[in-house]
Amino acid sequence: MPTLSRRTCCLIVAAFGALAAAPALAQGNERPLQKAVIQVSDNDVQKWNLALNNARNMQDDLGPEATDLEIVVYGPGIGMLKSDSPVAKRVAEALGRGVKVVACENTMKAQKLSYPDMLPDIGYVPAGVVELVKRQHQGYAYIRP
Amino acid sequence: MPTLSRRTCCLIVAAFGALAAAPALAQGNERPLQKAVIQVSDNDVQKWNLALNNARNMQDDLGPEATDLEIVVYGPGIGMLKSDSPVAKRVAEALGRGVKVVACENTMKAQKLSYPDMLPDIGYVPAGVVELVKRQHQGYAYIRP
Amino acid sequence: MPTLSRRTCCLIVAAFGALAAAPALAQGNERPLQKAVIQVSDNDVQKWNLALNNARNMQDDLGPEATDLEIVVYGPGIGMLKSDSPVAKRVAEALGRGVKVVACENTMKAQKLSYPDMLPDIGYVPAGVVELVKRQHQGYAYIRP
Repeated sequence: MPTLSRRTCCLIVAAFGALAAAPALAQGNERPLQKAVIQVSDNDVQKWNLALNNARNMQDDLGPEATDLEIVVYGPGIGMLKSDSPVAKRVAEALGRGVKVVACENTMKAQKLSYPDMLPDIGYVPAGVVELVKRQHQGYAYIRP
Repeated sequence: MPTLSRRTCCLIVAAFGALAAAPALAQGNERPLQKAVIQVSDNDVQKWNLALNNARNMQDDLGPEATDLEIVVYGPGIGMLKSDSPVAKRVAEALGRGVKVVACENTMKAQKLSYPDMLPDIGYVPAGVVELVKRQHQGYAYIRP
Repeated sequence: MPTLSRRTCCLIVAAFGALAAAPALAQGNERPLQKAVIQVSDNDVQKWNLALNNARNMQDDLGPEATDLEIVVYGPGIGMLKSDSPVAKRVAEALGRGVKVVACENTMKAQKLSYPDMLPDIGYVPAGVVELVKRQHQGYAYIRP
């Protein structure tokens, strides 16, 4: 009969259970990696600052190495990532601390923006809303400031 | 001894693991079905258009057959689904593309609205907020435009 | 060989599957416990009332014993929980019906608020956004009125 004993089989079960129930573990240690996507879709500088505050507070509270954060910017929020953004410096700081910041290419097309119009070092996704949905299906919590 | 071999048992394990970890698969193929609920609770035509844009962008990006989308309308957002709604035509288009659009009956009672006051072909739920919570527990991602 | 039969092993599998797929069960009965966190981060009395309506509607629809609700108040929303809050009475009612209501201590520090400035009987969390993320990872649905 097969190479897997019952005990092995049950260990596999337990492993699947743990994967399903718990957030991912940070590599190399036992602390759970707190994953979250933060949505920015308002044309409102106060909301942009709140999103950046939310990311910073998560990193301050949990430690940057224990968080996996992505700010997804789309629709009327896109101005947050244009090169003349009033929060350009804070976006750079967030990127420097390991926060992913991505702009929606659908929105850019609709507003006739191209890559040189945008802040340096940010990422891009084809559709912001799809990114938010996929990330939640990957186990990211959702925050909308 | 039983009819299930160890191999069968482990296959069942793997199946449960896959069910728990991954989004549901679209019937008849191997692509994951991207499920999402979209909340509309603002009395704001721009937000209604954003919600409809979000649904359309998801379908455009992923293919309508790979998405399972439900727009839940309640509280101050209910005007989106009244028969004089400024987005009536776009709601009909979304319904035609297979997006579910549901109105909250609690809100309708509070605002003395009855079914003939509402757009044709929409669905109804007893409480919008309960629908949003139940859907998330069923594995739907949450989007609030 | 081990004390676990294949049947037992498969029952464990099924149990893990159920845990992963379904919301927690209410103690002592078979109904699922509907868990949700409700975010309040706007300086807007209408939003505060909506959050309280959402909690009450969930309890009315499902029964208070079948719900596990927590309202997390932070950022510009903090006025909802100050002792002069225009919704003080409704917050007390929600607490009386078993809804948890918590204030963000990060926000309090930033706004130089201390505990005596706040409504009685509420709870406190170090960082509102972290609470929202952790709760989602514990299986709570997310609602942002």
